[in-house]
Amino acid sequence: MNVIGHGKQVIKERVLDSITAKKAVKKNRQIPISARVARECIGIAYGFFSPLNGFMDIKTLNSVCQKMKLLDGTLWPIPILLDISKDEIDKNNLRVGDQIILSYQKEPLAVLDVEEIYLYDKQKIAQAVLGTSDEKHPGVKMLDKWNDYFIAGPIQLISEPQFQPPFDRFWYTPLQLRKIFEEKGWEHVVAHQTRNVPHTGHEWLMKGAWFSANEDISIERIKTGILVSCIIGPKRVGDYIDEAIILGQQQLNESRYFRNDIHMTSFVLWDMRYAGPKEALLHAIIRSNLGCTHHMFGRDHAGVGSYYDPYDAHRIFDEVPEGKLNIKPVRILEWWYCPICQEVTYSGLCGHTNERQNFSGTMIRSIIQDKVQPTSLLMRPEVFQTMMHSAEKYGFGSPFCSEEYLKKRQPVFRLSATS
Amino acid sequence: MNVIGHGKQVIKERVLDSITAKKAVKKNRQIPISARVARECIGIAYGFFSPLNGFMDIKTLNSVCQKMKLLDGTLWPIPILLDISKDEIDKNNLRVGDQIILSYQKEPLAVLDVEEIYLYDKQKIAQAVLGTSDEKHPGVKMLDKWNDYFIAGPIQLISEPQFQPPFDRFWYTPLQLRKIFEEKGWEHVVAHQTRNVPHTGHEWLMKGAWFSANEDISIERIKTGILVSCIIGPKRVGDYIDEAIILGQQQLNESRYFRNDIHMTSFVLWDMRYAGPKEALLHAIIRSNLGCTHHMFGRDHAGVGSYYDPYDAHRIFDEVPEGKLNIKPVRILEWWYCPICQEVTYSGLCGHTNERQNFSGTMIRSIIQDKVQPTSLLMRPEVFQTMMHSAEKYGFGSPFCSEEYLKKRQPVFRLSATS
Repeated sequence: MNVIGHGKQVIKERVLDSITAKKAVKKNRQIPISARVARECIGIAYGFFSPLNGFMDIKTLNSVCQKMKLLDGTLWPIPILLDISKDEIDKNNLRVGDQIILSYQKEPLAVLDVEEIYLYDKQKIAQAVLGTSDEKHPGVKMLDKWNDYFIAGPIQLISEPQFQPPFDRFWYTPLQLRKIFEEKGWEHVVAHQTRNVPHTGHEWLMKGAWFSANEDISIERIKTGILVSCIIGPKRVGDYIDEAIILGQQQLNESRYFRNDIHMTSFVLWDMRYAGPKEALLHAIIRSNLGCTHHMFGRDHAGVGSYYDPYDAHRIFDEVPEGKLNIKPVRILEWWYCPICQEVTYSGLCGHTNERQNFSGTMIRSIIQDKVQPTSLLMRPEVFQTMMHSAEKYGFGSPFCSEEYLKKRQPVFRLSATS
Repeated sequence: MNVIGHGKQVIKERVLDSITAKKAVKKNRQIPISARVARECIGIAYGFFSPLNGFMDIKTLNSVCQKMKLLDGTLWPIPILLDISKDEIDKNNLRVGDQIILSYQKEPLAVLDVEEIYLYDKQKIAQAVLGTSDEKHPGVKMLDKWNDYFIAGPIQLISEPQFQPPFDRFWYTPLQLRKIFEEKGWEHVVAHQTRNVPHTGHEWLMKGAWFSANEDISIERIKTGILVSCIIGPKRVGDYIDEAIILGQQQLNESRYFRNDIHMTSFVLWDMRYAGPKEALLHAIIRSNLGCTHHMFGRDHAGVGSYYDPYDAHRIFDEVPEGKLNIKPVRILEWWYCPICQEVTYSGLCGHTNERQNFSGTMIRSIIQDKVQPTSLLMRPEVFQTMMHSAEKYGFGSPFCSEEYLKKRQPVFRLSATS
């Protein structure tokens, strides 16, 4: 299957065969990388970030920051960078032309051909990508923790990640997903990005978007599917635990609130930058690589605090030149619970403006915090049960990330030792 | 406003000024016409049937029956004919070249220039348009009652119909509707054809279709509207009375189940042929003349008994050559009440196939027949109240047509005497 990714080139997985991998490991120095860089190596290798084949050089970084483009003109809003300390460079005497092994948790993950080593002002990145250098912004905080030097060059995976339960059955590469979409006969696929255990508002968000994506309803067969694409990455105290998110989303399918043949659950490894509109663009790019034709964008997509207008992530798609993005944004306003309609309603349709009850995640969260089951109008009972079961099994008793969870949680994936 | 109708010509209303009208009435013989022909005169005169300017001649009739086209190639699926008896022709000594006055309920309605008088085999029309000549088919029954001769020629309205309450405030001509859509800023308008007092299934039918039509959601303003377009024509015993239908539909707006700025109620005068797929095409043509961009087609649209497959009216749109129809069909499968989801759900989305409760109009009808108020999950209480109020005011106590209603109902419109 020749699959064309976002950069309009064929997606080619960058995974070494085991013999070449072993040779490379034997020959080269190992440089430890952060969890983020490890996740991005995996993203690059399988084509989630197509057409990227490695970490960005200074010219590309400048182009992405200033023009939101790669050097060949491909739309690209957020830098993908391998940061390294001066110490590490000196200690290993790293030079352009070297081949190095990127190791994660003491196991080799990828081989990188060093094409450039450079220093860059991270404040400039923050300003360009996040629109702020306010250190309270979590994206700025993340950048602050990075090293000041960067290594550029293409990578190839040495060791394929072994995803651990419950994630293993939701792991699909872009090539696998596209094959599945073809087998399912989905001509339209709308991506729902999430970091939430779904309440009924989220469910209707997806249902409404399905209609918007379902351009030609056929009576012979359904041609449109929903891909729930969870973001798995670093967590903060109070976030839903990843296990509850992915199992809770899938529960909507298993309990048939969605037909099995129009819905599937998957995930993407990604460290949120909270870059609002620019991150929305990147999410669209990633999902176009997955083979999705549509991408949902609700209120304040990938935003944080009041750094962006809640609908900046809708507006930015108006600025994308024709033909530069192979996926259609489905812009969504708000779903509410309306006591008059006695159902979840859409702000564009329901006129009971004064009566409508805000579907605040905070409100539902506070109910759950007290281990009270929300009314089934707010959360499906099966989803609640699954969430609480995940809390026991994975969350040290809570569906929300605690300090304990952040320290002791089961890893999402392991690397098998190459010997 | 230059409005381009279905035939791609500018829609021009065919209404005589009062002086010319008076002269014509003075000069010409009056020929009484049926209620159907009167309704079709009004439809032609205001451009509901654009590009027709009158009743069809034999060549056009043959072309419509055999090729579903007018003589200039415009898509047209159902003949629009003025039937007349041999007696009437002889009594008035009617000849090609005559000008005659078509009178309805003893008032002059339109002037017609006789271009052709011809005999035609009505069984051939039935077979071509309805696909059957079975006399149990209500469209065949209708044809059986027609006279055997036909008059062709352009018409012009002499007297504008005076719509009576409660219809008066829902009467809009195609030109008026298009102006309203423009003022409302509706770039997409999805038509909902109905002959029903709405239950919640109908409501969701419209809501789902709104998402399908709402191609580019804007946060600045809503660009998509729903036009409820009731069919007002002859009734049968047991049908909902027209007054309950139109007021019940509007009640969804007045009680704000639909925002006032995305929904409006109107009607079209039309005598259902129950021609299934071909009638679906005609409904699409009429609504494209109204300025709608999308038209909903549910299960068994314009069908009757088992003469057509419930989805023939979906399939026929696949056969329309590109560019021949300026409106997009929104094909809809079924909405149900699902006790697990605890809401109205769509057959394309909800997986509780065994649990779902069929939204049968018959079931709701039987509840209402006993004057019991259905649960608000099935019918909005305000709609029920409106329907029962209409029953008292217009329906001789019942929301369904009785023999008494059919005989004594208030007329939908009156013609003012021209003196």
